Amino acid sequence: MTPSEVIQKKRDGGVHTDQEIAYFIRGFLAHEITDYHMSAWLMAVYINGMTPKEVLALTREMRDSGGVLNLSALPGKKVDKHSTGGVGDKTSMIVAPIAAACGVMVPMITGRALGHTGGTLDKLQSIPGFNPLPSPAKVSKILKTAGAVIMGQTDDLAPADRRMYALRDVTATVESIPLITASILGKKLAEQTDGLVIDVKVGSGAFMPTMQKSRDLARSIVDVCRAMKTRIVVVITDMEQPLGRAIGNALEIRECIEFLHGDSPEDLETVSLALAAHMIRLGGRARTMAQASKLAYEAVSKGEAANRFRQIIREQNGDERVIDNLDILPRAKHIENFAATSKGFVTRCDAKLLGLASNALGAGRNKVDDAIDPAVGLYLKKKLGDPVARGETVCEIHWNDEKRLQNALPLIEKALEIKARPGRSRPLIHAVLEG
Amino acid sequence: MTPSEVIQKKRDGGVHTDQEIAYFIRGFLAHEITDYHMSAWLMAVYINGMTPKEVLALTREMRDSGGVLNLSALPGKKVDKHSTGGVGDKTSMIVAPIAAACGVMVPMITGRALGHTGGTLDKLQSIPGFNPLPSPAKVSKILKTAGAVIMGQTDDLAPADRRMYALRDVTATVESIPLITASILGKKLAEQTDGLVIDVKVGSGAFMPTMQKSRDLARSIVDVCRAMKTRIVVVITDMEQPLGRAIGNALEIRECIEFLHGDSPEDLETVSLALAAHMIRLGGRARTMAQASKLAYEAVSKGEAANRFRQIIREQNGDERVIDNLDILPRAKHIENFAATSKGFVTRCDAKLLGLASNALGAGRNKVDDAIDPAVGLYLKKKLGDPVARGETVCEIHWNDEKRLQNALPLIEKALEIKARPGRSRPLIHAVLEG
Repeated sequence: MTPSEVIQKKRDGGVHTDQEIAYFIRGFLAHEITDYHMSAWLMAVYINGMTPKEVLALTREMRDSGGVLNLSALPGKKVDKHSTGGVGDKTSMIVAPIAAACGVMVPMITGRALGHTGGTLDKLQSIPGFNPLPSPAKVSKILKTAGAVIMGQTDDLAPADRRMYALRDVTATVESIPLITASILGKKLAEQTDGLVIDVKVGSGAFMPTMQKSRDLARSIVDVCRAMKTRIVVVITDMEQPLGRAIGNALEIRECIEFLHGDSPEDLETVSLALAAHMIRLGGRARTMAQASKLAYEAVSKGEAANRFRQIIREQNGDERVIDNLDILPRAKHIENFAATSKGFVTRCDAKLLGLASNALGAGRNKVDDAIDPAVGLYLKKKLGDPVARGETVCEIHWNDEKRLQNALPLIEKALEIKARPGRSRPLIHAVLEG
Repeated sequence: MTPSEVIQKKRDGGVHTDQEIAYFIRGFLAHEITDYHMSAWLMAVYINGMTPKEVLALTREMRDSGGVLNLSALPGKKVDKHSTGGVGDKTSMIVAPIAAACGVMVPMITGRALGHTGGTLDKLQSIPGFNPLPSPAKVSKILKTAGAVIMGQTDDLAPADRRMYALRDVTATVESIPLITASILGKKLAEQTDGLVIDVKVGSGAFMPTMQKSRDLARSIVDVCRAMKTRIVVVITDMEQPLGRAIGNALEIRECIEFLHGDSPEDLETVSLALAAHMIRLGGRARTMAQASKLAYEAVSKGEAANRFRQIIREQNGDERVIDNLDILPRAKHIENFAATSKGFVTRCDAKLLGLASNALGAGRNKVDDAIDPAVGLYLKKKLGDPVARGETVCEIHWNDEKRLQNALPLIEKALEIKARPGRSRPLIHAVLEG
């Protein structure tokens, strides 16, 4: 077998054997198959696709390319939640404490801001002192004490995926369902949890904008997990507009803490509690969704979830006082009110454009090593379907740099639309698949 | 513009602007666009194709990526001939002396053995002392004296093509009509000749096995040359069986010299004289093909072509005595007769398999730096349609290494087939396109 023969087969629409996929991924990992071989193959996969059996073999190779998170010494069921990425999506920091409060162990490995979407780690690092990469020994201790840890990916976990993802990012081969499936699950299955909840976003702010693509991705994820004997729930949730009201790192942490204190926008509550309930059920703490939802709701209302979040922050060296004092979080120097120029209803509140606007203010990265401004971002006073008077504030702009503000304004203007009649409303949860 | 945006456009079947192609090729040449970007893009081009306008822009970028062969100081029209590669295809060493003898200047830049096909330079280097890379000053002198030079590609000529070809070779993106067109013509147009004759091979031993693909390639070449205002003739010739009787470096030089002395297999004569006549016509030495063919025929029968070949060899430091004494060429230590096991007619004489067999004996390369054995190869005593008696020799195997012989034998066995009735004969020249 040669690299060229494997590439040729996929180029011509052929179906790889498990051996061919193993040869290619292991060869790449061993630097015998080069970046240029891999890029040609990734493009062939992007255009010609893969069968479910090929995706399974690829996922297995990704998972086995590095170490695993060995938590077998810890008692109880472990469940993780992962999102395909959105704007204002801060559910990780809500569902991890809730599930932990309900007795499910949550070893959550998460990422950085990417493109127009935010990153859980960047958000958490707006809490002074927060350590995103505790040592393996420390991870076990945190899980024992707090029941959940939210951490970055170590170099050792699924290294084939990390190198392949870096190539996909620069060769226009990201949006491929087989490659996304193997990338997500290669990492998640290396965590060796008992169950996974995957939040597949759909809409303008999602990497998969159409419902058909999102369903295909959900199906692909379920198929692989079933074959790998890992319990899986995929929830397809809406990302046409941002989730909740806050976009930007410290602003989103603030919204999470308010949520755990019982104060939340409705859409954020609906999605977070549904995700948390699935985690609780997969973690064996409830038999039905009704029971699980009740447990999740109570964990918030009784303050147990807030308490868990406090413990997580403390164990990860962050300033835990933030739970009771939001002033500890960085604040932007200026707040500009973006006002409605006419009376009517909000008919567009475009997630992708608002994500890009928040990035323009300094909340995200254009290059891997760009510095992030934790304080800046947007706060939506109005969302899709809300009535608005002329001159009323639709969105607060939290900014620090005049030039960046000028770059963000046209994006915000384009993202928000007011019309005389409200548009049709979209469901928040489009579908749930289980395997 | 980013590399990723350009790749994405072709990935999605889009049509590049001239600016996008210039950006991508110039960026690659400047090492700003990397091998992995290029590989992903090449695969997208392979699968999704290119419009004639895109091929033209790509060809222009290839041509302009390096220096040109500046022969404007030399009087008279210059014409080159190029073949897409075949087995036993030794026409370059025949047509260059013939055209030169007829007053056409031939600055021929040619290549090495590739895959199962032979390389003109490797063949010429079986002549003791032959220098395949004369200096630019020397090239002008050779052209003035001999009227033709047969040389390798300098580093300076179409460097973008050289680097792209190296990538295509290992990423399964060779057999693409847009990429082949730009690769051939990028180099050939940098020679700045007045006319080009391109021999597109079709059949088992060609890179384009089907007639449809060969016609598409011919059409694509004609379109680009027409837009570039260079006179072009594309001849589609048969490569189902090897051309002539000899396969292997010294064996083919021997057959060329015999040809120039008036002794040739019919198929080699038909193809060579047709190609030479087109060169003579494009070079302005004849108005009609009938006139040109007569001139070509006479150049051989009067010994003028043989004399030109002697001059070329002398000017390029080779041992010119070879023209009169074939014993100067290296000879294999052993000749094995491959005999017919039954009586009948030759119904298969597979060019690709015989090319691979000759390589297995040591006549070709598997890797760029493999050494070539100039003496070994095959000599076909019988060809397609020839009657053969049981026990009669079909093919001579010229060999030096027992192990290599054993590797070659099964390929030869598979390549040759004798049946009771002859098969249908194929035309030698399938089509001629002119632009």
